[in-house]
Amino acid sequence: MKIVEMRIVPVAMADPPLRSAFGLHAPYALRTIVQLKTDDGLTGLGETYGGAIPLRDLEAARERVIGQDPWHLTRIEAAIAGDPTAAPNKDRPWEGTLSSPVQSYSPIEVACLDIIGKATGRPVADLLGGRYRSAVPFSAYLFYKHAGIGGTDGLADASIAARERDDYLAREALSPEGIVRQAEDFVRLFGFKSIKLKGGVLEPDREAATILAMREAFGPEMPLRIDPNCVWSVETSIRIGLELAGTLEYYEDPTDGKANMAEVARHVPIPLATNMCTTSWSDIPETVERGAIHILLSDHHLWGGLMPTVKLAQLCRVFGWGVSMHSNSHLGISLMAMAHVAAAIPNLTYACDTHYPWQVEEVIAGGKRRFEEGHIMIDDTPGLGVELDEDALARLHEQYRKAGLAKRDDVAEMQKIQPGWQPVRW
Amino acid sequence: MKIVEMRIVPVAMADPPLRSAFGLHAPYALRTIVQLKTDDGLTGLGETYGGAIPLRDLEAARERVIGQDPWHLTRIEAAIAGDPTAAPNKDRPWEGTLSSPVQSYSPIEVACLDIIGKATGRPVADLLGGRYRSAVPFSAYLFYKHAGIGGTDGLADASIAARERDDYLAREALSPEGIVRQAEDFVRLFGFKSIKLKGGVLEPDREAATILAMREAFGPEMPLRIDPNCVWSVETSIRIGLELAGTLEYYEDPTDGKANMAEVARHVPIPLATNMCTTSWSDIPETVERGAIHILLSDHHLWGGLMPTVKLAQLCRVFGWGVSMHSNSHLGISLMAMAHVAAAIPNLTYACDTHYPWQVEEVIAGGKRRFEEGHIMIDDTPGLGVELDEDALARLHEQYRKAGLAKRDDVAEMQKIQPGWQPVRW
Repeated sequence: MKIVEMRIVPVAMADPPLRSAFGLHAPYALRTIVQLKTDDGLTGLGETYGGAIPLRDLEAARERVIGQDPWHLTRIEAAIAGDPTAAPNKDRPWEGTLSSPVQSYSPIEVACLDIIGKATGRPVADLLGGRYRSAVPFSAYLFYKHAGIGGTDGLADASIAARERDDYLAREALSPEGIVRQAEDFVRLFGFKSIKLKGGVLEPDREAATILAMREAFGPEMPLRIDPNCVWSVETSIRIGLELAGTLEYYEDPTDGKANMAEVARHVPIPLATNMCTTSWSDIPETVERGAIHILLSDHHLWGGLMPTVKLAQLCRVFGWGVSMHSNSHLGISLMAMAHVAAAIPNLTYACDTHYPWQVEEVIAGGKRRFEEGHIMIDDTPGLGVELDEDALARLHEQYRKAGLAKRDDVAEMQKIQPGWQPVRW
Repeated sequence: MKIVEMRIVPVAMADPPLRSAFGLHAPYALRTIVQLKTDDGLTGLGETYGGAIPLRDLEAARERVIGQDPWHLTRIEAAIAGDPTAAPNKDRPWEGTLSSPVQSYSPIEVACLDIIGKATGRPVADLLGGRYRSAVPFSAYLFYKHAGIGGTDGLADASIAARERDDYLAREALSPEGIVRQAEDFVRLFGFKSIKLKGGVLEPDREAATILAMREAFGPEMPLRIDPNCVWSVETSIRIGLELAGTLEYYEDPTDGKANMAEVARHVPIPLATNMCTTSWSDIPETVERGAIHILLSDHHLWGGLMPTVKLAQLCRVFGWGVSMHSNSHLGISLMAMAHVAAAIPNLTYACDTHYPWQVEEVIAGGKRRFEEGHIMIDDTPGLGVELDEDALARLHEQYRKAGLAKRDDVAEMQKIQPGWQPVRW
């Protein structure tokens, strides 16, 4: 079997005005769709970061992919990511670009596994060691946000129930009460059984109050997490951490860097989780040495694919780390890739993050996937279990072309509503 | 697809009187052959350690395997090896028994992958990330030995050319000159391009002299290794290591334990390799912390299968360790399992060990596999690419029954020719 075609389609999808420590989400989030075709007529899908750099890098990778057997993943990986006997590449920005060859390889690996799944009649999870679970748990992912649903705000609502849009999608949530209401929507509409709050936006005590308000609203059984995206100082992280000890399931990236995280770990009796302190294979040795984390948020887009994520999970087990999963704004191809690999990781000890409820548009046939009691189900459907809706893809590609965004820039977006805004360190 | 039958056959094969720090190989080496059958008529093979304990453990595992889908490896592993979210099991003897559930799982995983390979028409290497290489390099594995070929010594020679038996198999090799002659045979007959000497037998200076004699005989390009099986003191290891610096490719397990290995590493400018200091997932953190090794000798029998070995190789890359491969006395099923996983590991940075040239008997159809210029070739044959020779299996099983050996006991065997012999620490 040989890969004979590699199609790369940049898309833009409506994204609500969500806030984070980086600023404000633009009206459109960018993604890149990869489709491989083989000489025997099979196709495979992958999805990754969007914008000009991923696009350029994937275009550059094409000639290394065409002609390869999709089963020969180690060869394809080496063709893209370079000498596999060398130390892991350290020159990798934390996220959002594919200037790392490891990240360029990821959607190609996913598309190859989709092809292999179709060729063998097996779901992708079964190619990764097998389905350990069929129901993959996801967490509610809450954001402080401004009013509005992103895109043109006149977005056709074919793909979303008006009730949902009237609820969490359109409504402002810039207070503890607003977040509690958003959480109630997420739990009611999707059945999530754990809640993550994107922090680093309001003054830290107000974010702690938001967590405590959710504890009050949902009772002691609901796992709660907060993620200030590293913008709290060590002192703030320790102070808020001590306040929230006994309340948080885990404490995600309160502060920046391995040394600071290790210092917080020494003082706060809550497991520390990360997708920012430890974001590449080359970060592992120092993370281990410093005792900087307790839980790694895996991300197949960032770590080079699904098989690498399975390997990463075993490494986590060896060092006594829990495993959870990070998310960026994404479409259904990524959702299913995340779900398949999560199904195959026995030591997935926490529900996965996902931005998926914040996206109203799709490129996959049948429209948006539904969560069942907070879970994505993996059944016997071969491959990832998704196919492209070519009309939808064309529409989101046209939207990409018109949006004129080359990369994510949350600071610039924030400055549009608050001139001169700069990220704050609390 | 469901597993409907699990056949477990203990076998004994003739083994020459090879010496190591543990004593003397008995006339027969023990192995266990595992065969799984599915409801759609596919069969898969695995091979592992022999003797009473592996047999008992595999019999005990049977009820956890029957009824499972061979693709659902994570579920089968959990059914045998227990909670996959718990820390890796530390209660594991270094080798030779399956009282570790991790080791019990290994031949079952290999047999499942053999089945999956046959079901998909793909070699096992392609199920492990894909063939990075088609030619898997092995190393000559030399032993100090007494005269004789093991077994009854009247062994039918259908499976071995008289010339070979007259050469290295039957001949005594208890001196540097004897080992050089053995090495010449191995290089001439099998085409090996690197040489490992099992040490820990003669006085250390005499073993160093053996290495230097090989350097003299084969010139500066032939990679050489020595493995004293941990019986040298730190002082001896450093003294001999400094003498052999510039001569050895790597220095395998000169001394015992992570602290001692780390001390040797601080003084000797040769990469330290191990299959004794670090033999389980639970050994990794301390190995990393102490800086005890530079190269890990993987072994799918010991680490829980082929997928785990692929994961281990990535962990080695993360910590800057080279990857080589350990061997016990084995038959063709293990040879091919070793070759398939080695083919799928890009960072296999050294030729693999194998005892295979020391075994004259086989259980696979077609008799013993041939090395091509020191390599085992992985082609497109589905699965492991081997089938049972039922007559040969019955004969080696009968040999097991008659041999009356329940476990390997090299000390007792040595005492038969040297009463009162005990392992020596130099």
